[in-house]
Amino acid sequence: MSVRESFDRELQVLQKDLLKMGMVAEDMVHKALQALANRDAALADTVLAMDDDVDRLNLDIESRCLQLIALQQPMAKDLRTIAAVMKIITDVERVGDYAVDIAKESVKLADRPLFKPLVDIPRMAELVKKMLRESLEGFVTRDLNLIHQMIRHDDDVDHLYKYLFDELMQFMEKDPKLVYQALHLLMITRSLERIADHITNIGERVIYMETGEMKELHA
Amino acid sequence: MSVRESFDRELQVLQKDLLKMGMVAEDMVHKALQALANRDAALADTVLAMDDDVDRLNLDIESRCLQLIALQQPMAKDLRTIAAVMKIITDVERVGDYAVDIAKESVKLADRPLFKPLVDIPRMAELVKKMLRESLEGFVTRDLNLIHQMIRHDDDVDHLYKYLFDELMQFMEKDPKLVYQALHLLMITRSLERIADHITNIGERVIYMETGEMKELHA
Repeated sequence: MSVRESFDRELQVLQKDLLKMGMVAEDMVHKALQALANRDAALADTVLAMDDDVDRLNLDIESRCLQLIALQQPMAKDLRTIAAVMKIITDVERVGDYAVDIAKESVKLADRPLFKPLVDIPRMAELVKKMLRESLEGFVTRDLNLIHQMIRHDDDVDHLYKYLFDELMQFMEKDPKLVYQALHLLMITRSLERIADHITNIGERVIYMETGEMKELHA
Repeated sequence: MSVRESFDRELQVLQKDLLKMGMVAEDMVHKALQALANRDAALADTVLAMDDDVDRLNLDIESRCLQLIALQQPMAKDLRTIAAVMKIITDVERVGDYAVDIAKESVKLADRPLFKPLVDIPRMAELVKKMLRESLEGFVTRDLNLIHQMIRHDDDVDHLYKYLFDELMQFMEKDPKLVYQALHLLMITRSLERIADHITNIGERVIYMETGEMKELHA
């Protein structure tokens, strides 16, 4: 096997593991939201445990990236690709952290019924899960169209966030008894918005890798 | 100059630039809090502009780290050191992002007097600024005592965060007219707590670099 072939093969494996890490993070977001919707504290615990898997994958992929650079001395674009993997795993790891935050908030809300049915928060969660898939697939396939599609979903997430922020604030102003719940729902909303931010970082990184230009994609 | 000497020299330069980046980020936090305290929208704008410097330093340091790995093929501990620089700049960059968030929140609060004097929020800001200095100096000098000192400050930050969260929530429950302000102050508090989290990541990374063990330092 030539150096080139062995480099490409190792890069394939790294990308596969990155996708795996992304799937775990996505599943964490999914389960955190389920824990909230079904007042399921055991499921919230599962999310906390999954975070260890994400952290392990993060360190493992990182150290293999470093080895690959040191052993194969890739230049220019190959180097940017490995740098991209190293940055993207940091963002995916943060997605996992925010899923943990959401799971913890869901536990705080578990002891009383919600004052209104969850509609927009699950919608926001669906969007960020889709964004995560699009950004990682966009990276692996070098498909910038997917990245731009992801950015449009980020606009929707921002829109929902602002809407929910105002709505929850108005609930708090109307009825002091709702403050506790609305505040924790707001924190969950904030975490989802942050997740979208990190996924947008991934998109910026893919564009940087492909074009050499770093552009801020979010407002 | 031997390969070793030139490696060490380049590493010194990288560390100096990392400290510079940290000082800009610290100054951003400082100015964001001043913008809040003095209702100074122009200063808030300065913080936004400074974020570009941080982003530029981030990309510049990262690309030099990658070049250094590719050209010098460092092994084991040297590789971990450069990996540490690459991760630490990501966290410092996030500190800058949160300072921008605080600056933006301060603008939202600028049109009316605060319902209570700022005491604990500036105290929290002082703590995170100190933590940032300790973590970066701890990295550059490989002084784990400084890192453990930083962790103790993180406990104080967490304590203040919980205290402020409850206090601000009670204000909201007591008086609906305070909801808007208290909520934005809460967001600022949250950003400061997040900054402390990122700085704690830096500490974990220094310990990992020195011991090869990755431990979660924050609760």
